[in-house]
Amino acid sequence: MQLGMIGLGRMGANMVRRLMQAGHHCVVHDLDPQSVADLVAEGAVGAADIGELLSKLDKPRAVWLMLPAAITGRIARQLAAQMTPGDILIDGGNSNYRDAVDLAAELAPGGIAYVDVGTSGGVWGLERGYSLMVGGAADAVKRLDPILAALSPGRDGTGGTPGTEDTASQGYLHCGPAGAGHLVKMVHNGIEYGIMAAYAEGLNILKAANAGSEERAVDAETAPLHNPEYYRFDIDLAAVTEVWRHGSVIGSWLLDLTAQTLKDDASLSRFGGKVSDSGEGRWTLQAAIETGVPAPVLSSALFNRFASRDNDAFANKLLSAMRYSFGGHEEK
Amino acid sequence: MQLGMIGLGRMGANMVRRLMQAGHHCVVHDLDPQSVADLVAEGAVGAADIGELLSKLDKPRAVWLMLPAAITGRIARQLAAQMTPGDILIDGGNSNYRDAVDLAAELAPGGIAYVDVGTSGGVWGLERGYSLMVGGAADAVKRLDPILAALSPGRDGTGGTPGTEDTASQGYLHCGPAGAGHLVKMVHNGIEYGIMAAYAEGLNILKAANAGSEERAVDAETAPLHNPEYYRFDIDLAAVTEVWRHGSVIGSWLLDLTAQTLKDDASLSRFGGKVSDSGEGRWTLQAAIETGVPAPVLSSALFNRFASRDNDAFANKLLSAMRYSFGGHEEK
Amino acid sequence: MQLGMIGLGRMGANMVRRLMQAGHHCVVHDLDPQSVADLVAEGAVGAADIGELLSKLDKPRAVWLMLPAAITGRIARQLAAQMTPGDILIDGGNSNYRDAVDLAAELAPGGIAYVDVGTSGGVWGLERGYSLMVGGAADAVKRLDPILAALSPGRDGTGGTPGTEDTASQGYLHCGPAGAGHLVKMVHNGIEYGIMAAYAEGLNILKAANAGSEERAVDAETAPLHNPEYYRFDIDLAAVTEVWRHGSVIGSWLLDLTAQTLKDDASLSRFGGKVSDSGEGRWTLQAAIETGVPAPVLSSALFNRFASRDNDAFANKLLSAMRYSFGGHEEK
Amino acid sequence: MQLGMIGLGRMGANMVRRLMQAGHHCVVHDLDPQSVADLVAEGAVGAADIGELLSKLDKPRAVWLMLPAAITGRIARQLAAQMTPGDILIDGGNSNYRDAVDLAAELAPGGIAYVDVGTSGGVWGLERGYSLMVGGAADAVKRLDPILAALSPGRDGTGGTPGTEDTASQGYLHCGPAGAGHLVKMVHNGIEYGIMAAYAEGLNILKAANAGSEERAVDAETAPLHNPEYYRFDIDLAAVTEVWRHGSVIGSWLLDLTAQTLKDDASLSRFGGKVSDSGEGRWTLQAAIETGVPAPVLSSALFNRFASRDNDAFANKLLSAMRYSFGGHEEK
Repeated sequence: MQLGMIGLGRMGANMVRRLMQAGHHCVVHDLDPQSVADLVAEGAVGAADIGELLSKLDKPRAVWLMLPAAITGRIARQLAAQMTPGDILIDGGNSNYRDAVDLAAELAPGGIAYVDVGTSGGVWGLERGYSLMVGGAADAVKRLDPILAALSPGRDGTGGTPGTEDTASQGYLHCGPAGAGHLVKMVHNGIEYGIMAAYAEGLNILKAANAGSEERAVDAETAPLHNPEYYRFDIDLAAVTEVWRHGSVIGSWLLDLTAQTLKDDASLSRFGGKVSDSGEGRWTLQAAIETGVPAPVLSSALFNRFASRDNDAFANKLLSAMRYSFGGHEEK
Repeated sequence: MQLGMIGLGRMGANMVRRLMQAGHHCVVHDLDPQSVADLVAEGAVGAADIGELLSKLDKPRAVWLMLPAAITGRIARQLAAQMTPGDILIDGGNSNYRDAVDLAAELAPGGIAYVDVGTSGGVWGLERGYSLMVGGAADAVKRLDPILAALSPGRDGTGGTPGTEDTASQGYLHCGPAGAGHLVKMVHNGIEYGIMAAYAEGLNILKAANAGSEERAVDAETAPLHNPEYYRFDIDLAAVTEVWRHGSVIGSWLLDLTAQTLKDDASLSRFGGKVSDSGEGRWTLQAAIETGVPAPVLSSALFNRFASRDNDAFANKLLSAMRYSFGGHEEK
Repeated sequence: MQLGMIGLGRMGANMVRRLMQAGHHCVVHDLDPQSVADLVAEGAVGAADIGELLSKLDKPRAVWLMLPAAITGRIARQLAAQMTPGDILIDGGNSNYRDAVDLAAELAPGGIAYVDVGTSGGVWGLERGYSLMVGGAADAVKRLDPILAALSPGRDGTGGTPGTEDTASQGYLHCGPAGAGHLVKMVHNGIEYGIMAAYAEGLNILKAANAGSEERAVDAETAPLHNPEYYRFDIDLAAVTEVWRHGSVIGSWLLDLTAQTLKDDASLSRFGGKVSDSGEGRWTLQAAIETGVPAPVLSSALFNRFASRDNDAFANKLLSAMRYSFGGHEEK
Repeated sequence: MQLGMIGLGRMGANMVRRLMQAGHHCVVHDLDPQSVADLVAEGAVGAADIGELLSKLDKPRAVWLMLPAAITGRIARQLAAQMTPGDILIDGGNSNYRDAVDLAAELAPGGIAYVDVGTSGGVWGLERGYSLMVGGAADAVKRLDPILAALSPGRDGTGGTPGTEDTASQGYLHCGPAGAGHLVKMVHNGIEYGIMAAYAEGLNILKAANAGSEERAVDAETAPLHNPEYYRFDIDLAAVTEVWRHGSVIGSWLLDLTAQTLKDDASLSRFGGKVSDSGEGRWTLQAAIETGVPAPVLSSALFNRFASRDNDAFANKLLSAMRYSFGGHEEK
């Protein structure tokens, strides 16, 4: 079927490619003409703006937005203003699910169906397929089935959980009314932060397992290491992540990637350690807090990212200042 | 080759089975005669006690302990006292790696090699193979290679990380001197706690996504829910975990199991929510603390298990008492 | 001066009393006629509804709301609708500071000044005075100075930080434009949660210092206690909190109350340990998350309260279910 | 009475001064001759080494060690070797209470009484007195009563909790057998870390309350700030901490110091934010973990200190590497 795609970054462009491989027809637009030209060279129809994109699709149309969260709302409203009853507007980006709830309600009176699709898979999605979490009215979601089926992994090697017949086992799921897709994707990313941090903390502990081989200051500002004999191990983290991939309880796709990464460069020298967050982890915590659900692991993972970007600088200065004021402790 | 196995619980018995399937000869002992009899019926040689077990093995011998951490040290010393130079004593249980460091040093003068093997795979290891993290002297570990190769998954479908040639890609790894195996397994379990908690917290947040449909008290003890319209979703957690298995960033073996579990009983009615911990998570944190490595996610996961067993009861009473004393707040 | 007070609960009623002791004239209203009658008996002027309350005050009027957060917005709008230009509407409750920002903007065109006052002091405020954090336009706040001065502790024994001349050293502070008062009070309460939890956790650890005197199961579900000889202390928590009050670094008013509480009933038998939260801690975290500020301690304190009310039940069941599914672990 | 003091750092020297002010006779030693000379000039008797110090005291003697934890054990054993039955060896430093348990058992057969004194009060103790938490045999502790009474605040302005008659209300407490003093002090410091972090996090949140006035990147690596209008406050943190000192629920001695610190230099420009920890916080967590007591707030405070010293660097690089590997995300 036909699909319009607006936003041809890492995610959007590859999704178009995967759709075209499945025989779908894509009309594409991006602020960067080169991104459009690249996909036109691969078989897509290019559009210079939203109006042109809409004009090149047969009604009723379906247009997918794949944009940064900060601008999605604005572009969605521009797009909707030019749509006609029966059209479907899809937001596949990392938008706050609350915006989806609001937008769907806003567009419904004009006959525009709003569908939110949480999309996971990253740069590997072109090859592996994307895991799709979908929210919206049932008839609109049903109309998009060919698109969703093409983007998702389908009957991948993983296999569905025995007894599972629905689309979930092929990698896409209608989760509920508008907002449900982004909600499920939001929590997916919150979990992702937690899992990533679990591996990172554990590997950092293993890396420090040689602490007993180092000298240590003897003063009131330094905690002594009581049993240095237990900390004289030089652990090969690349080999360890590899062995965990085979038969252990913590095998995962993220571990597969981590093993590869450490094998390529065990020192991770090209990274500085300022870890970004794109919003989903924050919103997950916001939902936890508003509904009174404890989420200490997910919040620790999020706050650690904030701290990696030195957002704890003032708090730490305060702690040093307090230590100085009550105990005369100078910073080391 | 021959192997003695002491401790025929869930793990030990299945490891014997997997070894026998690979053609190895096992002499087995357990305090429970029935456990011994069961394996004898399957081809193992039974032994009524440690002495008999040793006598039925050719020297130099290799004996594997698969026992609860709390008694492993005592049994290991009893066993070592009856061993002769050249013998290998293997601890495959969830022992503290520090005990391995100590025991190896203690047994070395008598010519007994101590090998610690962290063993992951649970009740699935018989079928999938076990991920094995091995510590000890190189020659002893090398002698055990046929055993380790048989227990581990071998060339499973997962495939080694491209470019990997060593045993890690088959699921076993010589991690370093005595203690290194249990150290790596310890951190493995610490990570496991974190990953499990990440999924559990996230799914609990999704479960609460219908909080806006509930009534809420209006008083000074209850936080108001500002936007109930954003919390009116009934999410099918079994379907969600299924869809995440296909193409998403958080796919993992634990997720596979969780999807199956939720499919079988979405209410988890047979579980009470008192979550045990077997020690490894604690020791991981201890190592983090002693070496000064931040581990907020792993510690949150551990502390949450403690709290699930009501070990926070007194602290919570104190909090209610403080609220009453400064604000006159009665508990709800 | 004259002040109208709406909401005569624990806080509101005592504030009226403290104001009357300082010679101010209070017109009071509450949905509960008895609360009104009690204060009338002590010298206040009663009002049966908002209209009557306004009619009994000279213009320009100042009316203070002291209500649960969940209804404050509604009542504030009812009140404002009956006010005239020059009047001041004060919200002294635990409202979200965002509501203050919105309300002030909403009321400004009608000439109604909105002042938000974060009020700390609890049931002790009548005697000790209240710590007041004030937001709003400078002229309105200035007009309220006699009220603020009377409610606050004034020149209490504590003394201002040397060199401090402003009202802060007397216990009230104009923190900034509308919203600033509730913002500062919000964070105050967030900190309060953290401090309370710090004491509660520490005392719980001391309480467990006799763990080495207890029997412990020997099985794969129970972490062994390696050094029971270090856990055979029976600590008198009432005496410990008392000694910390004198000369230690952690002396505080909350510690004073805690020492008294433990002296009165060391077992805290009248409390069940379900710890409420009234919203401020949640909003503090929300602000931290939105501005990217790490707040692991404050969030841990908040999440612990959620867990004390069993909001972690489903997550914990999931953890037990996972342990069962990969390791065959039964719950104890 | 007579007391020997070994270790004349910030704490030891001031304790000698406070003892001399109360009329006690002190024989003092330190590796730094100048520290000895300074106190001799104020009336103490100097000693060039441990032997001389012991020779200048009448038997039975009492000698107080005030040394870094890392060397206390060694010096204690040197000292004990030269003591005679009836002597008392006091460790007033921040030693692990486990060492106290061990040392007391080690010295008992030789008739040397070991007393551990947790000492809080910092550089203010000379003036305010020290809060003393004492462990050891009852008769030894009783003999030290004049010393303990002189060091502690005595009947300070704070006043005992009504009904309290014991020494706790004067600032010293016999907490139990050897180890109990350091145990209680250990937890005291664990709580201290938590309280400090609570203030620091809260004030950092207030400092960020102007985040809405800043520009923000629009890309997939930056979480958008949905409501900048709620984050346009410039809060005077020095004034806020001052107002909280008067009548609020979070008034404390640490807050007094913080208000003074912020008044002197609101930017805290002389501090870099590398926050040391001296061991007690670590041991508190270790005790929590071993006894199964949840301590998420205290551990968050400790881990944050570790992270302030960049001990999370490798973990953060791993997180960035993972983000790059699955999503192509470049670090900002």
